[in-house]
Amino acid sequence: MSYVLYYSPGAASMAVHWMLIEMRVPFEARLVDIDAGQQHDPQYLLLNPSGRVPTLVVDGSPRHESAALLMLLAERHPEAALAPAPGSAERAAWLESMIYLANTLLPAMRDWFYADSDGDPAGAEAVRALARRRIEQACEHLDARLADGRGYLVGGTLSTADLLAVMLMRWTRNMPRPALGWPHLARYIRGLRSLPSFIELNAREKLTEWRNEDR
Amino acid sequence: MSYVLYYSPGAASMAVHWMLIEMRVPFEARLVDIDAGQQHDPQYLLLNPSGRVPTLVVDGSPRHESAALLMLLAERHPEAALAPAPGSAERAAWLESMIYLANTLLPAMRDWFYADSDGDPAGAEAVRALARRRIEQACEHLDARLADGRGYLVGGTLSTADLLAVMLMRWTRNMPRPALGWPHLARYIRGLRSLPSFIELNAREKLTEWRNEDR
Repeated sequence: MSYVLYYSPGAASMAVHWMLIEMRVPFEARLVDIDAGQQHDPQYLLLNPSGRVPTLVVDGSPRHESAALLMLLAERHPEAALAPAPGSAERAAWLESMIYLANTLLPAMRDWFYADSDGDPAGAEAVRALARRRIEQACEHLDARLADGRGYLVGGTLSTADLLAVMLMRWTRNMPRPALGWPHLARYIRGLRSLPSFIELNAREKLTEWRNEDR
Repeated sequence: MSYVLYYSPGAASMAVHWMLIEMRVPFEARLVDIDAGQQHDPQYLLLNPSGRVPTLVVDGSPRHESAALLMLLAERHPEAALAPAPGSAERAAWLESMIYLANTLLPAMRDWFYADSDGDPAGAEAVRALARRRIEQACEHLDARLADGRGYLVGGTLSTADLLAVMLMRWTRNMPRPALGWPHLARYIRGLRSLPSFIELNAREKLTEWRNEDR
């Protein structure tokens, strides 16, 4: 199995990068400099026609969509146990959590950050207002789920749902109500940020905010 | 294995209902009358706190999120072959398609239909404008993928991605640019609408528009 990850620091590639480090599988990471517009390079567009990160080249084939890549990697590496096994009691809850994060938080985040470029800038403020409402509702929902003191979203152990959730929570850090403002969510986030794989991920992506030592 | 599906005609439950019929597994279907507000009944909210359809009660546990339910059912019924097997060449493409539909088209549809109630009505027009743009881009994208004449999105056979895609395409029928206006998409839709399971689904949900015989 060979993996080449095209990533940009702190972008939607982060959860996939984190998972590859956590699983200790060999992979090559290639930086796509988004500030320099490298996502629009003709060579990159051959790998990812929409010009986004991540792209994960799996055994020679370029694959996309963070949530799908996390699910694919979980399936290809059952020994890493980053998803409940098919047929297990927690499987349905894991699938539901992955889809919930992918179809609620992820698109609302896109609206928050890209309302101006994806749509008419004149309407961007209204789009961002609804996005903010949805993101805060999702934080509320996750906080309620974590109120029983659990350290992971599904099944009592680390899964891809946590990697995806924490990446999305990181994106709220400069929003009007950052995820760390919800008490159970804050405890959960701090727990996951203490993982050696998260610390290593930040070092490799050269990220120096939103780590446990930053605040 | 026991299944109870809570559904509303033509709603997000439709793809799950279709799949259950297509697989010929026993299930009970219970109508949730959305016009009468039954999705807010205290008894239904116990099954689905967000007050939406579908809910699929799987061996006694209520489960949600259409795309997740399709993936769960595919996994529980491998003999139906409605998803490429784990480890197969088409598996990554199937996961990517499911997530693409779930995080691009599904949320844009929610924006199109619920901008007024989910957000500030004053901003609804701007939200709908961006939703329309995204839905039309997705139709464009799907049409391009189908331009090689294929009858199914993934792997040359019917999969859950088709059930989800056709349900979403149906929702465009009264939009400014319905999906049937794209040539390859129209051919694809007509092919899937000719399936006995789709005809049976429409009969059971008492739907009398957007069938092949309607136009």
